[in-house]
Amino acid sequence: MGELEPFLHQLCDAASAETMRLFRQPMDIVNKDEIKGVSSFDPVTLADKAAEKVIRELIKKNYPDHGILGEEFGEENIDARFCWIIDPIDGTRSFISGLPLWGTLIGLYENGVPIAGIMHQPFTGERYLSDGSQSKLVHMNKSKDIHSSNTQSISDCLLLTTSPKLFMEDELEAFERVEDACKLSRYGTDCYAYVMVASGQVDLVIESKLFIYDIAALIPIIENSGGRVTDWQGNSAAQGGQILAAGNIDIHQQAIELLNSN
Amino acid sequence: MGELEPFLHQLCDAASAETMRLFRQPMDIVNKDEIKGVSSFDPVTLADKAAEKVIRELIKKNYPDHGILGEEFGEENIDARFCWIIDPIDGTRSFISGLPLWGTLIGLYENGVPIAGIMHQPFTGERYLSDGSQSKLVHMNKSKDIHSSNTQSISDCLLLTTSPKLFMEDELEAFERVEDACKLSRYGTDCYAYVMVASGQVDLVIESKLFIYDIAALIPIIENSGGRVTDWQGNSAAQGGQILAAGNIDIHQQAIELLNSN
Repeated sequence: MGELEPFLHQLCDAASAETMRLFRQPMDIVNKDEIKGVSSFDPVTLADKAAEKVIRELIKKNYPDHGILGEEFGEENIDARFCWIIDPIDGTRSFISGLPLWGTLIGLYENGVPIAGIMHQPFTGERYLSDGSQSKLVHMNKSKDIHSSNTQSISDCLLLTTSPKLFMEDELEAFERVEDACKLSRYGTDCYAYVMVASGQVDLVIESKLFIYDIAALIPIIENSGGRVTDWQGNSAAQGGQILAAGNIDIHQQAIELLNSN
Repeated sequence: MGELEPFLHQLCDAASAETMRLFRQPMDIVNKDEIKGVSSFDPVTLADKAAEKVIRELIKKNYPDHGILGEEFGEENIDARFCWIIDPIDGTRSFISGLPLWGTLIGLYENGVPIAGIMHQPFTGERYLSDGSQSKLVHMNKSKDIHSSNTQSISDCLLLTTSPKLFMEDELEAFERVEDACKLSRYGTDCYAYVMVASGQVDLVIESKLFIYDIAALIPIIENSGGRVTDWQGNSAAQGGQILAAGNIDIHQQAIELLNSN
């Protein structure tokens, strides 16, 4: 299918033209769940839809036989060998709050297996990506390989999660067993948390209820930086759910044990 | 005392040379509280100390009769008419986690009253400041006035706080009364939350146990953008403590009532 990295950048260029036009601008926020008749707050913006639209158009133009699964516009041809998984704005709450922690996530699966992905934060200009080889950060016209942490003990770990309020009660207890064992935890990080694992800044991310498009792009970035991403039982994270991302297999194992030690 | 804004930028230029040299680099993290024999985690980095040092040197060279109060190196001549209040890295947890939400805070008090301040986030390059007149954002070589929100009802408000874990039990109940009334809340924001109020991105920040240097620089930036900052009783925020920052006096009043409605 040709060289992948230039196409990943092309997708991000097109998407960010849409998202940055609306970031930190007044806009109507559509409450998706209000439309569905559900009470929780899950804001979607015009930027979300516009960005996914241009990404889908470019994929269809360049790879007409590939499948696409996106947050905003659903599934097309997802039984194809190659399938693109898109979250145009992961972290819509960050986006509408003006915080530079949201990202555009674009992943590529081959027969259901994550093989490549990119996370783009257009305000800071950071692009974290893996085309299947060593993960890298492209920023300010420079590209550098990134490596996850080699922290060996859970007691030395930095842990991120988006919000403890997103856990069910028994999940919160499991999360807190890990949190209490770590050196430091920090909230409010969305997809930015996972690229901090990939670049060795933090050691662990623990979340639940992720959709496939919340994690798809991030799996190759973390795994090809030296890290490990699974669900809380150690199985594949490729369909979302309860997610544990770790800088290496040692702290991954320690976190798995704590999550399941009730 | 001459024109203030160029000096604020000069201080930030000097400080960011120190902080950015160490941001996202491996480094020894000194646990301040371990040194003091206290158990909670309050990391301080080499960058923190180096940045405050260069800020203090520039102030002493340019304004030898001014007082200085800094997080790292304490008080000097604080009974002077003009006193500088410095937090070289507000959000050390963000800093050591690689997140671009920390900031260098430099405020100026005249006879105990906040009159000017700057918040610099060197990784994104944003500088939010007020020299006593309309607040502004300087970013990418452009300067623009900023204005806080005119949201009129608490039910439409976006609320930020660093972590609900930082509240005492009765404070948490008060915070949650406001949180439950708001449209959306988000955690993990440190000083970045306050400049999001000043620039109209969010409506409210509620925190407690702030030190004077956590809030000093931010008071003029918010007040001169149209916002309001007080403690939870509506009194001066200039010494820290329980802090409420709001985009305007209407939602400030609604938040004060909820905080005190137990």
